Amino acid sequence: MTYCLGMLLKEGIVFLADTRTMADVDHISSFSKLHIFEKPGERCFVLLTAGNLAITQSTVNFLLEGLELPDKGEKQTLETVPTMFQAAQMVGRALRQVYKVDGEALREHRVRFEASLILGGQIKGAPMQLFQIYSAGNFIEATSETPYFQIGEHKYGKPILDRVLSFGCSIRDAVTLGLLSMDSTIRSNLTVGLPVDLAVVPKDACHVALRHRITEQDEDFRIMREKWAEALRQAWSAIPPPSWLEESLGEASATDNLRRPYRPSKP
Amino acid sequence: MTYCLGMLLKEGIVFLADTRTMADVDHISSFSKLHIFEKPGERCFVLLTAGNLAITQSTVNFLLEGLELPDKGEKQTLETVPTMFQAAQMVGRALRQVYKVDGEALREHRVRFEASLILGGQIKGAPMQLFQIYSAGNFIEATSETPYFQIGEHKYGKPILDRVLSFGCSIRDAVTLGLLSMDSTIRSNLTVGLPVDLAVVPKDACHVALRHRITEQDEDFRIMREKWAEALRQAWSAIPPPSWLEESLGEASATDNLRRPYRPSKP
Repeated sequence: MTYCLGMLLKEGIVFLADTRTMADVDHISSFSKLHIFEKPGERCFVLLTAGNLAITQSTVNFLLEGLELPDKGEKQTLETVPTMFQAAQMVGRALRQVYKVDGEALREHRVRFEASLILGGQIKGAPMQLFQIYSAGNFIEATSETPYFQIGEHKYGKPILDRVLSFGCSIRDAVTLGLLSMDSTIRSNLTVGLPVDLAVVPKDACHVALRHRITEQDEDFRIMREKWAEALRQAWSAIPPPSWLEESLGEASATDNLRRPYRPSKP
Repeated sequence: MTYCLGMLLKEGIVFLADTRTMADVDHISSFSKLHIFEKPGERCFVLLTAGNLAITQSTVNFLLEGLELPDKGEKQTLETVPTMFQAAQMVGRALRQVYKVDGEALREHRVRFEASLILGGQIKGAPMQLFQIYSAGNFIEATSETPYFQIGEHKYGKPILDRVLSFGCSIRDAVTLGLLSMDSTIRSNLTVGLPVDLAVVPKDACHVALRHRITEQDEDFRIMREKWAEALRQAWSAIPPPSWLEESLGEASATDNLRRPYRPSKP
């Protein structure tokens, strides 16, 4: 599996992607799932990919080679596409192209056509936009109310985002939050692993201002994970149990009390 | 969907189950997924159910009516089953019986045979045991290294358990943790909702010592959820971002700095 995250903020867009790919448990490799297309200062797109690697790599290659515009016969690339909306459409068309070429053979081999992508970026003079593109090539756009998209193994890392992330978060806070969300996923799911790729596209910069690969040797990330684990344990231990639980368990220590007979509470 | 959790502790077993059932978004109801079979002081079983409600309700009914022992012709019930292991086998046989009766019709209507169950409890004089039973009727047992099972929508609530829960936790701590795990799930997934049923079976008590239904009106649970949200936000804000991030973002405020041009870090 994979875990990728795109966060649309007032100040810019933050992208995170793990790199683990596995065909089966004996076949684990590391592939970048974060692809950058940019003409610094003019336009900048970041694409995150999850799903069948053959499908997503073909999609990226179609984008690099350019796709013919329907009914026009001329080729369009991300270098020439006029708007972010049309860039998202183009990614969808690239996926549909892969489906056209490989779909039938995959069906015959009972391989599901699975791919989902996140595309974000900005074209000079227009606003930043963030999209999630489904395997059918259709897509949705992030808003200030729903400022993030996740693809792949997304559930483990969702609660922390749901609680804290907002459109108004600083880039620094969003990167930290995103890394904690990644940490929860890595801990709970073997198929998501380091290294993790990070890219930050600040508002109106139209280029990737920060690009970083976090490896197993990243001491800062290790410390951050440990501090978070410790902070969570402390946060949790400060939560008062419901009073009905305290009443049932009595004033004595839970252990002592539980060895004595109970008065069951009313259901 | 559903979220159910069974935790095997040194001091006892804790069971939690939400009650939301939904055939489609217009058809949401509340059904108990926590079933108690007990002869207080002698034997006590708690069964949690997830999956297709028709399948799990039929399974419970077969258990209540009793199942014929293979090659013996006599009926066995949870009142007579001699060991916890055989109780788990019996739940598996009940599921297989439902499959025998309904499997073909479900297949014809393209309904998947989906059910998973958690069974825990104790028979006087024998140790407490906790099992997870799959839709094929096979099962696994919890150990002190892996002391909990989740069924249904399990991913959102897993990180907090992976970080904190251990076999040595007190019942009070495990109930609190379980409720926080339930809270994360309810927040991130609409198909899991209150009321939540709780049951506690202390070691060697052989009866359900605490049974509680947590409703929307439960002020304690509301306060607990709020405090946890606040504690998480505080815990998170105390986490130092990696130093390479601080260096990239500079000493100035993230916003100011990000408006200035960047020196991209090495990938």
